[in-house]
Amino acid sequence: MVETRQERQSVGAVSAEGLRAFVRDIALAHGVDAEQAEAVARVMVWAEMVGRPNQGVERLKVLLERVGQGLISCPCRFRLNSTSAATAVIDGAGGFGHFLGEVAMRHAMELADASGVAAVGVRDSNFLAAAGYYANLAAERGMIGFAFSNSFPKVVAHGGRQPVLGTNPLAFAAPMRQGRNLLVDMSSSAAAASSVRELARKGGQLPEGWSVDMTGAPTRDPAEALKGVMLPMAGAKGFSLSLMVEVLAGVLTGAGVSHGVGSMYRDFTRAGDNGHFFIALNVLAFMPLESFLARMDELAEAVSASGAGQEVRLPGAARWQAFEENAARGIELDPDIADELVALAGPHGIRAPWA
Amino acid sequence: MVETRQERQSVGAVSAEGLRAFVRDIALAHGVDAEQAEAVARVMVWAEMVGRPNQGVERLKVLLERVGQGLISCPCRFRLNSTSAATAVIDGAGGFGHFLGEVAMRHAMELADASGVAAVGVRDSNFLAAAGYYANLAAERGMIGFAFSNSFPKVVAHGGRQPVLGTNPLAFAAPMRQGRNLLVDMSSSAAAASSVRELARKGGQLPEGWSVDMTGAPTRDPAEALKGVMLPMAGAKGFSLSLMVEVLAGVLTGAGVSHGVGSMYRDFTRAGDNGHFFIALNVLAFMPLESFLARMDELAEAVSASGAGQEVRLPGAARWQAFEENAARGIELDPDIADELVALAGPHGIRAPWA
Repeated sequence: MVETRQERQSVGAVSAEGLRAFVRDIALAHGVDAEQAEAVARVMVWAEMVGRPNQGVERLKVLLERVGQGLISCPCRFRLNSTSAATAVIDGAGGFGHFLGEVAMRHAMELADASGVAAVGVRDSNFLAAAGYYANLAAERGMIGFAFSNSFPKVVAHGGRQPVLGTNPLAFAAPMRQGRNLLVDMSSSAAAASSVRELARKGGQLPEGWSVDMTGAPTRDPAEALKGVMLPMAGAKGFSLSLMVEVLAGVLTGAGVSHGVGSMYRDFTRAGDNGHFFIALNVLAFMPLESFLARMDELAEAVSASGAGQEVRLPGAARWQAFEENAARGIELDPDIADELVALAGPHGIRAPWA
Repeated sequence: MVETRQERQSVGAVSAEGLRAFVRDIALAHGVDAEQAEAVARVMVWAEMVGRPNQGVERLKVLLERVGQGLISCPCRFRLNSTSAATAVIDGAGGFGHFLGEVAMRHAMELADASGVAAVGVRDSNFLAAAGYYANLAAERGMIGFAFSNSFPKVVAHGGRQPVLGTNPLAFAAPMRQGRNLLVDMSSSAAAASSVRELARKGGQLPEGWSVDMTGAPTRDPAEALKGVMLPMAGAKGFSLSLMVEVLAGVLTGAGVSHGVGSMYRDFTRAGDNGHFFIALNVLAFMPLESFLARMDELAEAVSASGAGQEVRLPGAARWQAFEENAARGIELDPDIADELVALAGPHGIRAPWA
């Protein structure tokens, strides 16, 4: 049964810098090495800044539980295999997805500086978090970025009955002016599992077409949905995209595939063995960056004009607006999540930036 | 108004080889150079073979009209600019998309032989036809292939009112055994315009969510839909994918963008200036091909098992089944389309393979 939670008072706004340091210090206190703690804090706080808390600090608790049980390696002794001039595969040795994702995308960008395009895969990793973060790293450097990750099965195939693929996100970013890059970041399922968890926590019904319960019947109850399975977005098309992500991030990298990927929340018997895949395309290999930006302006203007009086937003626009608002007034954490962080920090004598 | 056509007698089955020669000879007789005529026939007949006649020989008539009016260049004096070790841009000089698409994907595969991954863009091209054909060229060579193309605006943005992007197909192929490759080939709109034209021609209603009429109201009448606009698939997600295709195929290549792309059917004042984009990923840069195929087998088995008694098909399976059936018994052309071909051939003394 879904209950509507009473709204609680926020702990007040916290700066990105303050939250990053807090998250990093908590991670360090729980045995995460400095390099990975910095990466985890960076990626999580970015998700908060762009208004996607589902990929943010709410994941810290479960990830640190996994660190405590030796299911995420600290430090991460990854091995980068240069397989050819413009590709590489990283054996992630069980480290944080946040860390390995940054390493992989940065390496792809270095290779693409010389070769114009590069692709880097990662195997034996864990939860990647916001795929858009890594794609956007490329856009910040004048490149087009792709990021793909598989995850443990909770989505049915089109026409299938049992979960076989993860919500398998795909992200794409292209440079635009003032860092307001075009940024696509979507699950290939009808919705991300984190969105269902959020509705289950806060109370509320799912939109139609997101999920079926354990009997295979459509459900709008998030609690039933969490016991059942998610549907792919747009039927066969979403299933196709999800398979594309699984082939790139899972099959081609040598990572776990389908049930070979473990659940971050439910399976404490094994590491995730998630796989990720990144592509960086150097705009300079095609045209001067200024020409590209001018052409992106034209595309944005055409899209905007097509609203004929209605506002039409580019993918990413809502994220950059949230980023600017959060930069100006600070991040408002969900009170329950703030409590969780305080509970993780307190025993180690780490003070919350809002305390 | 939509009328239901009477079913007419088929002209009988025709072999792929016979149809290819017929299409090629018609194209030659209408002023297409040999190299492009071969490519056009190859791509069109492949679409027929895989059961996608919307991308097949039914396009020949309008394309030859465009050749006659000098809107498609014959011969095609394209220029390939090698921009870096693993990328290139082809200035298509107004040639056939079928021809330029093959040239571009083959070049990407050559580059990827050495560099592991390669990307090739095409500008100043025309209608690409089945994007899956080019992606599958890569899969046939043990590579993973991506193909993207923009097209003239007939799809609204999510939340928009006027058409701003094309049906912008994206295709993805990965090698599997016996050439039954994983093959994704989808428009980023709710449906391809050719599917609407087919329903308009044959009589029938559109599924909900495909289109709105000229007043912006949802319509299931294909004739109204052809006057109005198409909707993106899955709302914001499909619009995002469509923009991704437009950035790669249009913006990055230097091709026409949005209304910069001309309509094949409606605009005889200018060439298409379509853009395409191809990526080839060499599996051997990641693992031996046999390992990859074995891993794809495992993925396919997991997907199949997830049906729990119901059949679940991989993307591409229906196409390869059609291919095998058509190879065994011949291609059955739509009688109207067969008539069109005969009308194009007759004045030049070319006999249909079924005559």
